[in-house]
Amino acid sequence: MREFDLIHRYFDWAPANPEVVLAGGDDAAILALPEGRQMVIATDMLIAGRHFPESTAPDAIAHKSLAVNLSDLAAMGAVPLGFTLSMGLPEIDESWLERFSTGLRAAAARWGCDLVGGDTVRAKQVTLSITVFGSVAAGRAIRRGGARSGDRLAVTGAIGDAALGLRLALEMGVAPSDLSHADRDYLLDRLDRPEPRLSVGQALCSVASAGLDISDGLLQDLGHMLSASRLSAEIDLDAIPLSSAARRWLDAQPAAIDQVLGGGDDYELLLALPPELPLDPAWGLTVIGRLDDTGPVGAIRDRIGRPVAGQRGYNHFSEGSE
Amino acid sequence: MREFDLIHRYFDWAPANPEVVLAGGDDAAILALPEGRQMVIATDMLIAGRHFPESTAPDAIAHKSLAVNLSDLAAMGAVPLGFTLSMGLPEIDESWLERFSTGLRAAAARWGCDLVGGDTVRAKQVTLSITVFGSVAAGRAIRRGGARSGDRLAVTGAIGDAALGLRLALEMGVAPSDLSHADRDYLLDRLDRPEPRLSVGQALCSVASAGLDISDGLLQDLGHMLSASRLSAEIDLDAIPLSSAARRWLDAQPAAIDQVLGGGDDYELLLALPPELPLDPAWGLTVIGRLDDTGPVGAIRDRIGRPVAGQRGYNHFSEGSE
Repeated sequence: MREFDLIHRYFDWAPANPEVVLAGGDDAAILALPEGRQMVIATDMLIAGRHFPESTAPDAIAHKSLAVNLSDLAAMGAVPLGFTLSMGLPEIDESWLERFSTGLRAAAARWGCDLVGGDTVRAKQVTLSITVFGSVAAGRAIRRGGARSGDRLAVTGAIGDAALGLRLALEMGVAPSDLSHADRDYLLDRLDRPEPRLSVGQALCSVASAGLDISDGLLQDLGHMLSASRLSAEIDLDAIPLSSAARRWLDAQPAAIDQVLGGGDDYELLLALPPELPLDPAWGLTVIGRLDDTGPVGAIRDRIGRPVAGQRGYNHFSEGSE
Repeated sequence: MREFDLIHRYFDWAPANPEVVLAGGDDAAILALPEGRQMVIATDMLIAGRHFPESTAPDAIAHKSLAVNLSDLAAMGAVPLGFTLSMGLPEIDESWLERFSTGLRAAAARWGCDLVGGDTVRAKQVTLSITVFGSVAAGRAIRRGGARSGDRLAVTGAIGDAALGLRLALEMGVAPSDLSHADRDYLLDRLDRPEPRLSVGQALCSVASAGLDISDGLLQDLGHMLSASRLSAEIDLDAIPLSSAARRWLDAQPAAIDQVLGGGDDYELLLALPPELPLDPAWGLTVIGRLDDTGPVGAIRDRIGRPVAGQRGYNHFSEGSE
């Protein structure tokens, strides 16, 4: 199949957003920005065998590839507009492409993000490079810096599910022996199908003092916020929101708290919120601590002042992380 | 080396364009668009061993990776703003990264295009995915469609050098035996260091009827313009501008005209220009033919009406094209 046929067959949908002036069929795409808005741009590259097992369902790969990029837009408070997709493929597997395309189209429609361009090349590994574009009111994006002493620290959803799901996916056998099939399926699904917290990010745009998404792990990403904001933090480990499945895992294996605190891939949001801000229950936020300027920059303490240690996130170039 | 260190050491430059509100260090980049402008977006993925020989100088790889993307912006008449770079690397080769980074920084400065974000991952092959952003006056981008019967066809620069350079790079020995070292170096340089025709595209924005860049080969890219504009064309094969090196090659091997007409990678612009438009010599344009509606859509004839045949461009997924 020629490249043009491949794009035409699998990736040629009419855009839905009025801001998409031109998508595909020319040298470049054209996006309009509504007046008073700025463009927010994030990019991620995912490789089979590294970022997802080669056997992952194609529609799950499509979902996750777009979701992890949109999570970065969510963390800035942006509204998605469109994305480009460049794919390296070892072969033209029409069944794989059909399922990938169906999953991608569903994800794009779900999050209101139009495919506006891309490239397809032959590669040794399935390689997906996505760049997403969103818009935000000028000067109102949620940044990592800007948190203030006294701000509450809050997270969306539940923390640690993806890291526990990754243990299930990579090292069957280390999970508690009585973990139910339903719990396993839930944790694996959380790993494969993260949900970008777009509506929460948009609601808190220009309200949150600072924020980012939890991709490297709660402690490491909190560290990024603290460095950028020149602050320290106290967190209440017992307040960290856990799913029922993660709770049951931790009850059986308390040491798995290291995965919960240090594992990545949750794609929940971590936010610094002014103390006086009323929290809308619809946001699904849990307050897990408070920012202060009493410790060294970047220091994280528990409620009785002990340093919180843990695995320090995922490093793409460290040995043994494959 | 950890990912953060790698980015900090090799890819952390202050942006120069005032439109770049935020580049790096957060979840996403932020670009402002001047009022009345739209965002133009192009993306390309390049893989070592496929799009460039593994032994290509790292600074040449950097130059070409950015140039081929900027050529798409040039073809739309856009002014560059910034780009993202995602890299898959088999290993951390500091000498390679140093030279790549130096070349990229020089290319970015030369074309006024700021690095605003990216990603680095481990991969089996050197894999470069670049997405470039530019701006154009709203509604004024040069498109592939919109050419009119009677328009002149013109190209920038010289045609075919890159295709002949590729023969030199891949199949030493097929070149004419008396081709000088200077000619060989010139053709290889044209393959490795294409020059995006940004100023010509910008000058002809809202003046040209249609345009695109010659990446797949003159005949194939002309075919794209004809399909999009529902026209046919007559071209004067003798008018196609050739470099002295290409001219000497063709004098010795007339059959190499197939490479000139069908080979890709020149990254010159092909433009449809209204017949009354005065041509500024500074644009460096050569008129090579005329568009009409006398033939079937897409038909290309020479001056005495014969169909122009030739190699029909480069197909990333055909067998044997590696």
